[in-house]
Amino acid sequence: MGVIIFNAALLGLETSQRAVDAFGPLMLALDTLCLAIFVIELLLKMYVYRLAFFRDGWNIFDFVIVGISLAPAADGLSALRALRILRVLRLVSTAPRLRRVVEGFITALPGMASVFTLMALIFYIGAVIATKLFGSAFEEWFGTLGRSGYSLFQIMTLESWSMGIVRPVMLEYPYAWVFFIPFIMVTTFAVVNLLVGLIVNSMQDAHAEESNAETDSYRSEITARLTAIEERLDALIEQKKD
Amino acid sequence: MGVIIFNAALLGLETSQRAVDAFGPLMLALDTLCLAIFVIELLLKMYVYRLAFFRDGWNIFDFVIVGISLAPAADGLSALRALRILRVLRLVSTAPRLRRVVEGFITALPGMASVFTLMALIFYIGAVIATKLFGSAFEEWFGTLGRSGYSLFQIMTLESWSMGIVRPVMLEYPYAWVFFIPFIMVTTFAVVNLLVGLIVNSMQDAHAEESNAETDSYRSEITARLTAIEERLDALIEQKKD
Amino acid sequence: MGVIIFNAALLGLETSQRAVDAFGPLMLALDTLCLAIFVIELLLKMYVYRLAFFRDGWNIFDFVIVGISLAPAADGLSALRALRILRVLRLVSTAPRLRRVVEGFITALPGMASVFTLMALIFYIGAVIATKLFGSAFEEWFGTLGRSGYSLFQIMTLESWSMGIVRPVMLEYPYAWVFFIPFIMVTTFAVVNLLVGLIVNSMQDAHAEESNAETDSYRSEITARLTAIEERLDALIEQKKD
Amino acid sequence: MGVIIFNAALLGLETSQRAVDAFGPLMLALDTLCLAIFVIELLLKMYVYRLAFFRDGWNIFDFVIVGISLAPAADGLSALRALRILRVLRLVSTAPRLRRVVEGFITALPGMASVFTLMALIFYIGAVIATKLFGSAFEEWFGTLGRSGYSLFQIMTLESWSMGIVRPVMLEYPYAWVFFIPFIMVTTFAVVNLLVGLIVNSMQDAHAEESNAETDSYRSEITARLTAIEERLDALIEQKKD
Repeated sequence: MGVIIFNAALLGLETSQRAVDAFGPLMLALDTLCLAIFVIELLLKMYVYRLAFFRDGWNIFDFVIVGISLAPAADGLSALRALRILRVLRLVSTAPRLRRVVEGFITALPGMASVFTLMALIFYIGAVIATKLFGSAFEEWFGTLGRSGYSLFQIMTLESWSMGIVRPVMLEYPYAWVFFIPFIMVTTFAVVNLLVGLIVNSMQDAHAEESNAETDSYRSEITARLTAIEERLDALIEQKKD
Repeated sequence: MGVIIFNAALLGLETSQRAVDAFGPLMLALDTLCLAIFVIELLLKMYVYRLAFFRDGWNIFDFVIVGISLAPAADGLSALRALRILRVLRLVSTAPRLRRVVEGFITALPGMASVFTLMALIFYIGAVIATKLFGSAFEEWFGTLGRSGYSLFQIMTLESWSMGIVRPVMLEYPYAWVFFIPFIMVTTFAVVNLLVGLIVNSMQDAHAEESNAETDSYRSEITARLTAIEERLDALIEQKKD
Repeated sequence: MGVIIFNAALLGLETSQRAVDAFGPLMLALDTLCLAIFVIELLLKMYVYRLAFFRDGWNIFDFVIVGISLAPAADGLSALRALRILRVLRLVSTAPRLRRVVEGFITALPGMASVFTLMALIFYIGAVIATKLFGSAFEEWFGTLGRSGYSLFQIMTLESWSMGIVRPVMLEYPYAWVFFIPFIMVTTFAVVNLLVGLIVNSMQDAHAEESNAETDSYRSEITARLTAIEERLDALIEQKKD
Repeated sequence: MGVIIFNAALLGLETSQRAVDAFGPLMLALDTLCLAIFVIELLLKMYVYRLAFFRDGWNIFDFVIVGISLAPAADGLSALRALRILRVLRLVSTAPRLRRVVEGFITALPGMASVFTLMALIFYIGAVIATKLFGSAFEEWFGTLGRSGYSLFQIMTLESWSMGIVRPVMLEYPYAWVFFIPFIMVTTFAVVNLLVGLIVNSMQDAHAEESNAETDSYRSEITARLTAIEERLDALIEQKKD
């Protein structure tokens, strides 16, 4: 873990041109050392756990991240070099509390799957309509399906949607608001529903745990005591018969 | 369902000029084929269910969407042609999980009706005031009721409300903030209340379902056992009398 | 109520110059008629309820709104004339469902009082600091306490806070972000807490109502049956003694 | 408390150049008087409570705030002078209701610690990647780690993220959205989770308190009555044996 933090600081320092000029070779050596430690750690783990290693999602996560770091060493793509910083994410896999937060995020996702599908559908439909209607006049924003999708994402986040996009479009197509305002309402409503769904889900989980503890113990006590009362009554009835 | 997805991809492809140039006639033929399949499916359904067909909201939904697709084939309005992509929405009516999400949205709406009415009222009042006060000086933003409504919607979403609209207006009318800041506060508060209402509603539903399962079984068990105890006591009292 | 809606449409029409040119005098006459009806209704109510009239908040609300409409008839202030549209708000006081929503809003306010006080405090402190630090260089944004307050409100809504305000300020005072970023975080956090408070409050209310109905009836049944069992036992003990 | 409010108004007045021109010396004298009162109050408190004084967080808070006010009197740094207004925050430490709100905020923080750590991690990684990829071409936005961090914070708040930053960047690096859109989604999702966590936490607290009051009294009543029934049954069995 210390190695990860040290490596993170190192990669941060590398963004400073002055630091690179002064200690460039040293930093490169240290970075290679860190990477070597990660690779050895990973190889050891793989040796110990063998195939079971790949059954844990977090191990695969570490494996991919270290793999990304090895790849750029081979070729010189700057984008892949920048991804080396993702190694810092290994912090998450080593700290149990962060792991739990991420696992919480991930377990929340499947419950949201249908809303996400719906939003993807809305986006696809919106992008096709926007491209067909406004594509010819506003090449930059709605020229292709991809550009329309990006612009609609921007509009959904409400960033400059009116002053930046819809007002200029409305100069050309005065009824453009008929498309954009419902789009904003529907997507915002869907986002709100995602949020509500998340809250209700976590709430139910939290509620279930909390109440079970106390209520269950009370309920089993009551049931036990009723049984006791019944037994005594049975005893009384038995006594009587004698 | 496969036909719908294939048709969706086809309509997406049509937005690309290059694809249209290369395979235009083929794509048109395939699109017509898809539409024909939908129409036949719909006609078959209508023949089987007859009048009951129109009792299900989802059938009406399919009917309208396929109807829209047929209309533009007649005349050449580009707006209606673009709406053909709405056919993709039929995916929603075929996938039960998506259907349930949409039904969830729709059932949430009536509970929100009074807040929506209130917001419509606030918007109407705001638009009339803004048009009267600022209409003459800011023709483009507040010239008519419609423009004021659009600008107020933009202000409610907080997009460029200050730098784009209110600061320029305040150069002319220094006290314009007396109108706009309360407007923002009231509408934002109303939106937050909508959100809260939605959460509380879904919560209650979720809560009711969850707790009923367990609590009800416990409660009926207790009631049954109390009845048993009472019966034995009655038996005892009877025995006594004899 | 019909009169209110008719009056609302009339006042909306008045924003259209063309309608005023064509039917100006007629519209003025109808508007005066509506106002007369409101005044008579109000006077009748006051006559019937006398002092009790002023005990209901909604009556005072109606009284003030009609009062505002009478005032502008006297002098010609355009701002007050525009406020005549507030009469539409009387719809709220006549429709019970809308009344309940507004009452819900208002009852939610006192619980939020301390958070509001805190935000007012943060705004006051922020405005004084911003005016002292940036007032001389950015006269337009932070020249006076009032302007600073307005700019900080804009920043809190996140509208153009960075591109519009903070980046230009940072060109002059590179450490301005030390003030603005914590300000954004604190005010956003406070707003989120307001929201959470509202949700928790309405939740508790909703929960209390919902569960009371069923749980209370179950609990009183159980208590009654236990009493019955005790009585029978007492009877048994009595029988024994005889 | 009256002194604090008076002092707050005074410091507010000082931002007005006209007031300073007219009553400058008087205001300075009054301000010094207020400060003197605070210092004396604090010294008295420290004398009475001695070391226990520093055990209460609010006392330390007062101590630091008054300390800040004394420091600028020595040197003439305008930034520190502006911080004198922080004395108004002493209002919070004197008003119990405000104190409770702030304490509520602070107790909510530790539960959020892991999400905050995660967000810091995401920001650090994002800043390093953005600096490496876009730093050379967009010196002003992504030139250093600090600038990237600030720009990413702006992007997270969704302020001008697209029109202001990402679209210009995409002119140079067409695939920049591959970095920015996931960044927005992840950070927004994390913020939403923070919010949900807060709501669920306060909810559980509120729920626990509310239900305990009534449910506990009911449950103990039931338990007591069952005990009474058992005792009577025991008595009956005893009687029998005799």
